[in-house]
Amino acid sequence: MRHLDPSFSLEVPKGAAEVGHPVVKVRGADALEVEDHLAVEEPLEIRLGGYPLSITMRTPGHDEDLVAGLLHAEGIIHDADGLDVIGRYRAGDGEADLGNVVNVLLKGDVSVARERLRRSLVASSSCGVCGKVTVDSIRITCPPISCDAVVPATLFPRMSAAMSAAQTTFDRTGGLHAAGLFDLEGRLLVLREDIGRHNAVDKVVGHMLRSRRLPLERHVLMVSGRASFEVMQKAWMARIPIVAAVSAPSSMAAQMAVSAGMTLVGFLRGDGFNVYAGAQRVAGSGSELV
Amino acid sequence: MRHLDPSFSLEVPKGAAEVGHPVVKVRGADALEVEDHLAVEEPLEIRLGGYPLSITMRTPGHDEDLVAGLLHAEGIIHDADGLDVIGRYRAGDGEADLGNVVNVLLKGDVSVARERLRRSLVASSSCGVCGKVTVDSIRITCPPISCDAVVPATLFPRMSAAMSAAQTTFDRTGGLHAAGLFDLEGRLLVLREDIGRHNAVDKVVGHMLRSRRLPLERHVLMVSGRASFEVMQKAWMARIPIVAAVSAPSSMAAQMAVSAGMTLVGFLRGDGFNVYAGAQRVAGSGSELV
Repeated sequence: MRHLDPSFSLEVPKGAAEVGHPVVKVRGADALEVEDHLAVEEPLEIRLGGYPLSITMRTPGHDEDLVAGLLHAEGIIHDADGLDVIGRYRAGDGEADLGNVVNVLLKGDVSVARERLRRSLVASSSCGVCGKVTVDSIRITCPPISCDAVVPATLFPRMSAAMSAAQTTFDRTGGLHAAGLFDLEGRLLVLREDIGRHNAVDKVVGHMLRSRRLPLERHVLMVSGRASFEVMQKAWMARIPIVAAVSAPSSMAAQMAVSAGMTLVGFLRGDGFNVYAGAQRVAGSGSELV
Repeated sequence: MRHLDPSFSLEVPKGAAEVGHPVVKVRGADALEVEDHLAVEEPLEIRLGGYPLSITMRTPGHDEDLVAGLLHAEGIIHDADGLDVIGRYRAGDGEADLGNVVNVLLKGDVSVARERLRRSLVASSSCGVCGKVTVDSIRITCPPISCDAVVPATLFPRMSAAMSAAQTTFDRTGGLHAAGLFDLEGRLLVLREDIGRHNAVDKVVGHMLRSRRLPLERHVLMVSGRASFEVMQKAWMARIPIVAAVSAPSSMAAQMAVSAGMTLVGFLRGDGFNVYAGAQRVAGSGSELV
């Protein structure tokens, strides 16, 4: 990069893209409680002329650009002239608090755009957001997990290595997410890979369901990448008490783990990892970590 | 991992999870045309009692497990007893070929499950799949990109480094995807980060749209992770001729790049990268690469 364009746009809304969260950093036999930063993941409800259209999980900030880009990708608007107003919307009395709501007004006949968008957005995803966009609304149908499963801290790096070893056998593409299910002794029971993180988890849980082995209260779910909202939601529904991610969790993943009584481990590197929730299920060498 | 459980399940359908694709490997001033392997990404249409319910992009294999796991995560079934049959479905005459179709029969009252799923899946995603699940169906509304934009091969590693440098300023969480828009001289114009890959791209394109700078025929889009179907689709709609991904593209991303006349660069590491489509827009030091 030689120099910046005068119209360069890099501003990030302060305090919106990340949030502090207490974590237990485990490095070998040592454990330290510190404050960490998590990427914020929150639902955005998009309304068209006040009419609910779509909900997407996103990192707050530049929401108007997000909506404009989405409408463009869907072929609903072709340039800025198609847009009238993108405004913040406050939910009225008696409406559920859906987090952030954006209302879009288009120029021209909105009914055509609305019907086209509605038709196109109907059949889109298995990401797990699905209208139940708040932690609270999921908690209603899914009670917290209170089982006393415990895994030694030393087992997490070993499970991670076992999954990597199994993965390299199959994934020569570098483009697949993996999800693995382990028992509390660290034995790998099922491994599935998919271009979609949530698909790999669905395939693992679906395999156990079809084998009549649900609920999975004595198991650990490991994912090769990040732990997002939908991974936690699917694990919660399957009653998996411990989720471990090779990379970072999102803010909502950590928030959901706390609410669900789940243990969330992340940033598995070498013999170290972070515990974002439920550290009582991670046993140190001879002593509990926290 | 000490030993394998007797019921360990690791089988991967042969030839389904990856597919061969010709690439130009660029390493410094050298370029070599070889066969590479890409993770397969294909649409799966899920029908309930023959009635279209949802389409998800996935890597083929274990589709029945995927569907069972998805229905479980949505709270539609609680165990194997809720499932009757998950079967392959051949589209009838006169129906569009939607790739793979799976039909699910549930025990009990299907209408309740269908209504619940339909309601919950309506408002789920901005991932860009949106019913237009084949490359062909998108091509109808979006003509191929034929612009003669050319970028020197040496600029790609520099753009990647510039994006990484800009990212580390903001992302202390390790959990955000980034999308950056560059001009043909490698100047970074817009950078957006989001927990969702497709959101970051929507925010970039939306910013340019609202600044009245579409179409983006003289630009390069770079994404920090993998290039998936939806990234390519959004770039295509914005008329961006060159997409570069730090990690691997999916099979459908490469297929779409070929169909759209787009240039797709991936696996940007050090001074090397791979060109998956449209190598004529990547100029070598003094000579065209291919």
